[in-house]
Amino acid sequence: MRNLELDKVYQKLEPGPVVLLTTAECGRPNVMTMSWHMMVEFNPPLIACVVSEADYSFRALSQSGEAVIAIPPADLAETVVGIGNCSGRDVDKFARFGLTAKRANEVEAPLIEQCIVNIECKVLDRGMVKRYNLFILEAVKAWVDPKRAEAPTLHHCGYGRFRIDGEELRLRSAKP
Amino acid sequence: MRNLELDKVYQKLEPGPVVLLTTAECGRPNVMTMSWHMMVEFNPPLIACVVSEADYSFRALSQSGEAVIAIPPADLAETVVGIGNCSGRDVDKFARFGLTAKRANEVEAPLIEQCIVNIECKVLDRGMVKRYNLFILEAVKAWVDPKRAEAPTLHHCGYGRFRIDGEELRLRSAKP
Repeated sequence: MRNLELDKVYQKLEPGPVVLLTTAECGRPNVMTMSWHMMVEFNPPLIACVVSEADYSFRALSQSGEAVIAIPPADLAETVVGIGNCSGRDVDKFARFGLTAKRANEVEAPLIEQCIVNIECKVLDRGMVKRYNLFILEAVKAWVDPKRAEAPTLHHCGYGRFRIDGEELRLRSAKP
Repeated sequence: MRNLELDKVYQKLEPGPVVLLTTAECGRPNVMTMSWHMMVEFNPPLIACVVSEADYSFRALSQSGEAVIAIPPADLAETVVGIGNCSGRDVDKFARFGLTAKRANEVEAPLIEQCIVNIECKVLDRGMVKRYNLFILEAVKAWVDPKRAEAPTLHHCGYGRFRIDGEELRLRSAKP
């Protein structure tokens, strides 16, 4: 994985892929599937996301204030669904799904080697957690796998139904 | 356009399509392109979105407390980019881009006939507007064009580059 400039992070998240969110609690890594996220600011990149209190990751995210947002390629779809259908309360998901945890630079939460992008994040604002389970994260370091940077990603439509990235289209636009 | 049950709204927005946001100010409709949005709650559907103070729509959204989120099909890509590259300050965008404004039920902001989904929204929470330009909207009524409900949508990767929805994938999942 190579460094991904922070001002390009939005180009990976703005298209709305399903992501994996890793956390660590007392050295124990966990991972959940997440689709409720959006960019809030370009640079430094701010990202809003919703992690329900019902998710086991909620505590680790809240207490550590750290996470990694990892973007899985479409060929990881079965794993993405599997991760979403079990809980870190009961299972070591990295072991069960054969994911390789790699040490991050700025946070304790691990990177996922099988993912095409990994974004190290710190919780910046908890002001909307109580009301909406909405966290504002700041991306502090990001990584891309240059060989698979353009791999198709998944977009979740509910109950395990996905649209996979298809054709690319390039139009002239002055807007980021 | 037919009624779209409110508990299915997330299935249209969670995949992360580029959307058009319509507003109305003193009876004058306007529309902007938006990619920074996410679901916050299933039902009643709550949607977070970022509308910059620099956007002309900011004032209409803030003052009226109403908007429509419209999902354009991929074949509207040129229009989507065009809308993003001019301002309602200078142009009647509905006229310039040949969009048909239709009367909504619950809000003054118009529906867009050419879009495959239209979601009527009211601003529910402005608590994060000052700091992040982040609005929490509540969907109060939604519409789908049944003939084009599954049409491919656009995902914006920056500067007019899009990925278009490709293949569909259905896996077994208990999770909405």
